[in-house]
Amino acid sequence: MADSSTPPPPSSDARPHRSWWGWGAADKALSDAECAELGRLVPGAADTPRPIPALPSLALPRTRVEPPTALAPLMSATPPDRASHTYGKAYRDVIRALDADLAAAPDQVARPRTEREVTQVLDWAADADVAVVPYGGGSSVVGGVEYRADRHRGVVSLDLSSMDRVLEVDTVSRAARIQGGALGPALEAQLRTHDLTLRHFPQSFEYSTLGGWLATRAGGHYATLHTHIDDLVESMRVVTPVGVNESLRLPGSGAGPSPDRLFLGSEGTLGVITEAWMRLQDRPRHKASATVLFHDVHVALKAVRALAQSGLNPANCRLLDPGEAALAGVTGGGESVLVLGVESAHVPVDGRLAELVALARDHGGTPSPSAGDAGDTAASTWRSAFLRMPYLRDALARMSVITETFETAVTWDRAAELYTSVRGRLATVVKEVTGAEGTVNCRLTHVYPDGAAPYFTVVAPGRRGAEVAMWDEIKAAAMEVLGDHGATVTHHHAVGRDHRPGYDRQRPEPFALALRAAKAALDPAGILNPGVLFDPATR
Amino acid sequence: MADSSTPPPPSSDARPHRSWWGWGAADKALSDAECAELGRLVPGAADTPRPIPALPSLALPRTRVEPPTALAPLMSATPPDRASHTYGKAYRDVIRALDADLAAAPDQVARPRTEREVTQVLDWAADADVAVVPYGGGSSVVGGVEYRADRHRGVVSLDLSSMDRVLEVDTVSRAARIQGGALGPALEAQLRTHDLTLRHFPQSFEYSTLGGWLATRAGGHYATLHTHIDDLVESMRVVTPVGVNESLRLPGSGAGPSPDRLFLGSEGTLGVITEAWMRLQDRPRHKASATVLFHDVHVALKAVRALAQSGLNPANCRLLDPGEAALAGVTGGGESVLVLGVESAHVPVDGRLAELVALARDHGGTPSPSAGDAGDTAASTWRSAFLRMPYLRDALARMSVITETFETAVTWDRAAELYTSVRGRLATVVKEVTGAEGTVNCRLTHVYPDGAAPYFTVVAPGRRGAEVAMWDEIKAAAMEVLGDHGATVTHHHAVGRDHRPGYDRQRPEPFALALRAAKAALDPAGILNPGVLFDPATR
Repeated sequence: MADSSTPPPPSSDARPHRSWWGWGAADKALSDAECAELGRLVPGAADTPRPIPALPSLALPRTRVEPPTALAPLMSATPPDRASHTYGKAYRDVIRALDADLAAAPDQVARPRTEREVTQVLDWAADADVAVVPYGGGSSVVGGVEYRADRHRGVVSLDLSSMDRVLEVDTVSRAARIQGGALGPALEAQLRTHDLTLRHFPQSFEYSTLGGWLATRAGGHYATLHTHIDDLVESMRVVTPVGVNESLRLPGSGAGPSPDRLFLGSEGTLGVITEAWMRLQDRPRHKASATVLFHDVHVALKAVRALAQSGLNPANCRLLDPGEAALAGVTGGGESVLVLGVESAHVPVDGRLAELVALARDHGGTPSPSAGDAGDTAASTWRSAFLRMPYLRDALARMSVITETFETAVTWDRAAELYTSVRGRLATVVKEVTGAEGTVNCRLTHVYPDGAAPYFTVVAPGRRGAEVAMWDEIKAAAMEVLGDHGATVTHHHAVGRDHRPGYDRQRPEPFALALRAAKAALDPAGILNPGVLFDPATR
Repeated sequence: MADSSTPPPPSSDARPHRSWWGWGAADKALSDAECAELGRLVPGAADTPRPIPALPSLALPRTRVEPPTALAPLMSATPPDRASHTYGKAYRDVIRALDADLAAAPDQVARPRTEREVTQVLDWAADADVAVVPYGGGSSVVGGVEYRADRHRGVVSLDLSSMDRVLEVDTVSRAARIQGGALGPALEAQLRTHDLTLRHFPQSFEYSTLGGWLATRAGGHYATLHTHIDDLVESMRVVTPVGVNESLRLPGSGAGPSPDRLFLGSEGTLGVITEAWMRLQDRPRHKASATVLFHDVHVALKAVRALAQSGLNPANCRLLDPGEAALAGVTGGGESVLVLGVESAHVPVDGRLAELVALARDHGGTPSPSAGDAGDTAASTWRSAFLRMPYLRDALARMSVITETFETAVTWDRAAELYTSVRGRLATVVKEVTGAEGTVNCRLTHVYPDGAAPYFTVVAPGRRGAEVAMWDEIKAAAMEVLGDHGATVTHHHAVGRDHRPGYDRQRPEPFALALRAAKAALDPAGILNPGVLFDPATR
């Protein structure tokens, strides 16, 4: 059990290697030359990359609010802090940062080290009519950490990164009490000493936090069973403006509506998640993976459905459509690729993988020659590309190529139609908006017995200076076509501000009334992340 | 797809065989002679059974409200209808019914046949200040369907039993749209024609409804994975006083807090669940079960934990402590009994069962000779007793024997201590209250990687005429000791009115504020199931 009484010394910038404008680590960004080379793969892309503005050159708005003396040690108003906390990491965020458009910068960045300090910041902000935007890893791709309202006296970005420790590990129940600001690698490193793992690996793993995952109902890497962080929660502690909400540590309960489920997905609008007891697992010791090819994507969809309904629960069941597979360098010939993985901490998995592969073959798939080999080439090629994707996206942004990824979920009866319809509609819109042929690819990231979560990637050459406007048009069309099919506006990227139109359409109206009432009860001053889930006017 | 346009003709009593005072079917109740025989097993029990009051003799309070003409065809104020809808089936309900204490009888019993009629009843009730108590199968053991407030002009029991059909089956996604009033056997019979099953089998299966399961977050028969009905929900339709709430049919989503999770566990206080799309499964074709004995219950608890954390996910993993095992006639010699079951629709399960049995043996268990045999004697003996238990409970009530069952959930680190502490405390309280030695037995009904759900049974001779008072004292002590250990007041029986003290203690205060605000937004007149989850004064 770690000692939680002494907070670590505050750090004015705990992550000096982080890119202030783009994804992840600054030194992993592609060079100008690499950007240009990548751009040549997209006909119509710019010839030269957008320059990255130098931090000292940035014109930030005047700081409107100063913290009280007691909170001053937690606060920073330095240009690097304000600039890096202005946006998340959506495409439109990256473009605006490259444009040095930082009018929405927060006045202050607060880095509380204790829950008490979180409470103090909220108390001060409510009194001073200052909006508070909770900030974990800042990896939001939906405008979740960007203040866009105008009715507050000032804005504080509440950066939880100093609260990043595993405070307690219960090896008997296999659970740990973890602070909300812990980034993926930090919390896994602390759990590894107990030979345990949270085993939640979103693509943003390195640069997103437990609190952020919980607030946004994040999806992990694994394809079946516990796909969302929701299912891994034993209890949560949430600082709301009206007090701390702590649920009991329970493996299961039927006592009224689940308290945790109100805060899961609340995206910083109802409170700040300071810690949670999370369910852990033994580290997997047995792993096997295989690749199956399909000549027809619709045959592949049916096969994946059979696998999802088989009860065999593969850890990975990722279907790449022909465009996605080609982009990832897995195939070149118009085939769909199914990447299967099985894992277990306790028992060998080769038998289960063989059953899955056999089932896929029965449904028209062709196992690739290396099937069953843990070093399977296609799978590992794809995995490398997967982790590199956000950096490539930034490089494409610098080449004024528009990229948009959006994900959804839909029941199987509508999955094939949705796939066809979304690709068709988006191709048309891309053509209308950019004048060029773009690509619209798709993969299934998670599968369920009753449906699937398709993840679409749109790439098209944009016009320098008009990227955001073009992106916004494409985004709007994406939300519209999903809504037309009764598919969710987001499976795991959350709502933020960018998905509000789709979310407002899909949220049942009585539930909206209930949620607004809950918001007013918990955040009477209306300071928490205004504009996310609710209109800023709602206090 | 069934035709949902023509409602069936209304029935003044759709279930003539139901017992008005006790559990289930009237003709399955024990005879006077059987009651007396059973009573002789409990030293100190009464010599003769309490008589069952004749329905015509019942003194019901005056009916205070009459429905408007348009709703009159749905309404009944006959003594059998009012008497049978006064209480649920808690021990204290049965005793009071036997006492012919029906002062709390509803004024009217409404049996809507369509969602529109549900809306009409709610509209009328809100205007007329009439409380509405949603009533599914009436199987609540926590006072969930009994009006106990006094501030309304009248009370209507809203019996959903005429809305009992499977309206639509999507065999591709394996899901069905089912009306809220469908009892377990009725919905399974309709699904069987598609070779599908909801596979949710609470002990109350025959006499509880889908809507009731959803409203109370019911627990099914299966020990691991999807233990609660919550996880089987794709979408719900809920009639609230301010409109119909319908969520999208989705296999998964991350768009804001889950709308369904607000209504799951709302126990009729926020709306009336008229239908839901439920996730189905292929019917299991492979089954195997085994029994493992343990000489020490604490060794057994550790073994069950190992099984729960093994990833093998047995369908059944029911640990009976020595008293429970003896009561069920499975053993006589002070051993604990672990009943294991494995099921699959697709693959043979003998291998998985063997792994589970081997793991139990490694942890100190002794597989019974018939292990692996699907007809395993101990398991089937116990299953028969399980389904008969509510009838035995009623017979014991007639012999003035006090019985109470309560269930909870707790993480593994506290499970052994909770087991010892609850048994010790309850034994003391039973002695204080009844003056006699009672028995306090326990089984684990559901297990999780991080904890277990213990289910306690208390049996003690009571004093005729004082049974309810004695039961109330024992119940209060049970809630207190659970609360002291941070265990939930209920794992799957729900809160109702009887569990309010424990629930009020465990519900975090900010969440209580949010929930009350949601209640006020959805039910501004405060007519829905007053006293459940919220104080009746909360409108």
